[in-house]
Amino acid sequence: MANDKRYAQADNDALLRIFTIPEAPSSTLSKIEAEISKNLNGFLSNHIVATDKPLSEIEKDFASSALPERPEYVSAHTSQLLDTLIAQSVHTSAPGFIGHMTSALPYFLLPLSKLMVGLNQNLVKIETSKAFTPMERQVIGMMHRLVYGNDDEFYHHWMHFADSSLGAFCSGGTVANITALWVARNRLLAAKPGYKGVSEEGLAKGLKTYGYEDLAILVSERGHYSLKKAANILGLGHSSIIAIPTDTEHRIDCQRLREKCAELEENNIKVMAIVGIAGTTETGSLDPLTQLAEIALQYQAHFHVDAAWGGATLFSNKYRSRLQGIELADSVTIDAHKQMYVPMGAGLVLFKNPKVVAAIAHHAEYILRKGSKDLGSHTLEGSRPGMAMLLYASLHIISRPGYELLINQGIEKAKYFASLIERNDDFQLVSKPELCLLTYRYVPKATQLYLQQCTTSQAVKVNEILDRLTVVMQKMQREAGKSFVSRTRIPRQGQSSAAISVFRVVLANPLTTNDILQQVLVEQEEIANEQTDLLAQLQILITD
Amino acid sequence: MANDKRYAQADNDALLRIFTIPEAPSSTLSKIEAEISKNLNGFLSNHIVATDKPLSEIEKDFASSALPERPEYVSAHTSQLLDTLIAQSVHTSAPGFIGHMTSALPYFLLPLSKLMVGLNQNLVKIETSKAFTPMERQVIGMMHRLVYGNDDEFYHHWMHFADSSLGAFCSGGTVANITALWVARNRLLAAKPGYKGVSEEGLAKGLKTYGYEDLAILVSERGHYSLKKAANILGLGHSSIIAIPTDTEHRIDCQRLREKCAELEENNIKVMAIVGIAGTTETGSLDPLTQLAEIALQYQAHFHVDAAWGGATLFSNKYRSRLQGIELADSVTIDAHKQMYVPMGAGLVLFKNPKVVAAIAHHAEYILRKGSKDLGSHTLEGSRPGMAMLLYASLHIISRPGYELLINQGIEKAKYFASLIERNDDFQLVSKPELCLLTYRYVPKATQLYLQQCTTSQAVKVNEILDRLTVVMQKMQREAGKSFVSRTRIPRQGQSSAAISVFRVVLANPLTTNDILQQVLVEQEEIANEQTDLLAQLQILITD
Repeated sequence: MANDKRYAQADNDALLRIFTIPEAPSSTLSKIEAEISKNLNGFLSNHIVATDKPLSEIEKDFASSALPERPEYVSAHTSQLLDTLIAQSVHTSAPGFIGHMTSALPYFLLPLSKLMVGLNQNLVKIETSKAFTPMERQVIGMMHRLVYGNDDEFYHHWMHFADSSLGAFCSGGTVANITALWVARNRLLAAKPGYKGVSEEGLAKGLKTYGYEDLAILVSERGHYSLKKAANILGLGHSSIIAIPTDTEHRIDCQRLREKCAELEENNIKVMAIVGIAGTTETGSLDPLTQLAEIALQYQAHFHVDAAWGGATLFSNKYRSRLQGIELADSVTIDAHKQMYVPMGAGLVLFKNPKVVAAIAHHAEYILRKGSKDLGSHTLEGSRPGMAMLLYASLHIISRPGYELLINQGIEKAKYFASLIERNDDFQLVSKPELCLLTYRYVPKATQLYLQQCTTSQAVKVNEILDRLTVVMQKMQREAGKSFVSRTRIPRQGQSSAAISVFRVVLANPLTTNDILQQVLVEQEEIANEQTDLLAQLQILITD
Repeated sequence: MANDKRYAQADNDALLRIFTIPEAPSSTLSKIEAEISKNLNGFLSNHIVATDKPLSEIEKDFASSALPERPEYVSAHTSQLLDTLIAQSVHTSAPGFIGHMTSALPYFLLPLSKLMVGLNQNLVKIETSKAFTPMERQVIGMMHRLVYGNDDEFYHHWMHFADSSLGAFCSGGTVANITALWVARNRLLAAKPGYKGVSEEGLAKGLKTYGYEDLAILVSERGHYSLKKAANILGLGHSSIIAIPTDTEHRIDCQRLREKCAELEENNIKVMAIVGIAGTTETGSLDPLTQLAEIALQYQAHFHVDAAWGGATLFSNKYRSRLQGIELADSVTIDAHKQMYVPMGAGLVLFKNPKVVAAIAHHAEYILRKGSKDLGSHTLEGSRPGMAMLLYASLHIISRPGYELLINQGIEKAKYFASLIERNDDFQLVSKPELCLLTYRYVPKATQLYLQQCTTSQAVKVNEILDRLTVVMQKMQREAGKSFVSRTRIPRQGQSSAAISVFRVVLANPLTTNDILQQVLVEQEEIANEQTDLLAQLQILITD
């Protein structure tokens, strides 16, 4: 019994130690930390295994569901993390990893992130965040100004105004889009005599009260899948998302949009929202936002712009006009963890009118009391970390002109890569870069010539082989581990009926050089040349 | 012109440097980092100003909405962060900060967080996370086993099974609760002949198809406000949340619940879900989960348990029986950033049946292809950071018995604090600690005696003064900055009609000592004695 107690005391002391005694400088974890601080890219290059290991193999290291009954030493566990988890993670910041919207990060964000974790503020309310609340409100204010450009007086009045908000910080673009459409739905089905509003009485009674057959959200067929998710969660269903065809440049066809709006109105289906895309995920295309705003106004619909990826272009005085009309949006989504170079977990939704958040406001006794400036009273999420600090620091350290340089470089790099593709006889540029994103595929020159003059049914057969070629090439390139492009399926030249597989490239990483881009094509040509079976099949088809 | 280009080049080089050149060891930021690594609590104590500054004053430091046009040096900006942001943040990990569910964190999580940020994985898909995906699946598996305790075979089969999931990692308990009720709604209004399901065709048609007047979610009146938020987002409206009265121990009254279920059924309102609470936010109370499971089964309702805060009690072999019945829940919410001691931003929802996530599954061409193991195909959020790594490491380094020790200590500390309150004539324990959370208030002994024999209308008047006393005491204690308790309003002994203001204390921080708890009461007594006006008013009332 006395022995038991002594053991318990020893365990207890060991446990308290992890809360009170820092890692020794000579420990494995401290050494890793020092290495990261000195040379992150070097650390990642040294520890992440470049060549591919099948997922089924990796899963063997993560197979036990048993709860550990024995504590592990920090150093032993760290070594295990290095060997299993880190070694088989993805080097998302590598200059040759140009397939997704990840990039290298500025160094100063590493120690700042650690500081953020150490401070462990909770932004849901002022009691657990204090200065972090006005700081986040300022960041939202700055981003609001970037989009809407109101005057000092507007921000002086609204930035720190209780029970209102210029937007909401959230974990990412999906939550931002859901929040925007949540606001749109709740404002549309607001309280009126005999109905307490959708937030109180729900959707079904709202439709009945307002006499709508249904609600619709209109967006181009290139809209992000999070919009469908939003429609699902909000109780509208995927069918409420009406996909409007795009033109040859993957921009929404405004004529078709107008026709659809008129048709819906005739059928008593209310256009709840029109969503413009400022940088589609698949092709980086930009919708004609000013025209969309006009149509939204005509139909009294909420106008939302999903600029999760392209929104940072507004920092560029040279290119910001490409997003013209965004300032007319009722709400805008921007992801700071995309082209604003902060780590994963930083999304934003901004509202033109700071009063609209009242439509989703909620209160509770122990926190978020009415009249408070607690940010949690109008966010989808509850407890949230102080991620806004990383954006605050980036805005000050990089500054607007710095972001402009980064944005401009990305766009120019994409133009350069597009020119490389166009100059190479065996590649085909599928979507030109409007921003720093483009798509292309490998098509041997003879096949390209054949496609220009063959029949539709012949083209279908050729494209089928080309699709298989694209898929296998992308997979082999990924597995080789030198560079990475992603792939998707998009309609060829706006023909919705005939989608093709393409390589997709995002050039946001400032460390990606022209040399690396040249190498990507060289490597792809080598891989293509190894696909003798598929190339032979192509040859047969085009000489048939 | 040549000059312009040269300047641009210089700017460009300076910008590239922040991505390539680490902070010098002698820089302000590196020094802060070293200080944090050596002594986080010391750093926070030294830099966070203890005494209160009005929010309106703090806001002056965060007043500009202008986008910075000049880059700041990292060191200069860091100094500014220290003086304005950090100095006025909240020391949430201080041993005397016992008002909210924040705690000191284990040291090893600081460097690991930095590593997580440096790796910048995106858990939405395997292409940007690789081993992080099976790692997160393992963490979810372990937490599932903690709750449901299935055998090895079950986890071997399901943990890494494509197109299914044992749960979802998310930013916090709110998103977890929303996800659980989203699944419940979509399963209830599933596809059937003539209806493609709520996810496709929406809520209004679903109610019509199934012939329900409305849907209801039943939960005790102590339910977390995130449930109302969920009902709002999901299109059901706040009115679908039916608050069931609680007994004197703040547990849901099962008799009243049964009656309400029968009444709703009679009115053709379908009970969509019954929510049990395992640790209410305000009083830490535990609902009788086994009984709730029975009632849910009887009414064919989804049974969700919100164990955001109390779920970690399952690690304690000594106390886990208090949550008996949780293993019968269809879904369970647990926040790792509460009693599992990881930083803000780590919530979990777990599903008894791994197939139910199909009800909220979504796919897209460029990612989340069908049949993939991508975690993003059934999460509310899209892009997400690799937070699961912090929980993975904590589970291995702290281990189950370590968590048990932490949980047990918290509960025992709460018992100790309750005994201090009960032994003090001038304090009144309002809710006894079932876990490590309790509420109390300051009531001078004579007033306590008066309340025991006075009329209800007399009690109302006294409680009004006591409420004001509680509010002012809590505020003054917070402003003095030595210690912090929170406050809320709860019904006295289950009488819903008469809510009173109380101090609320959460004792999860392993660094909180008995001495500190004694000091909290001493300080409160001193503050109370300064409130001569209110005390005089009380005196008049009780001698009237």
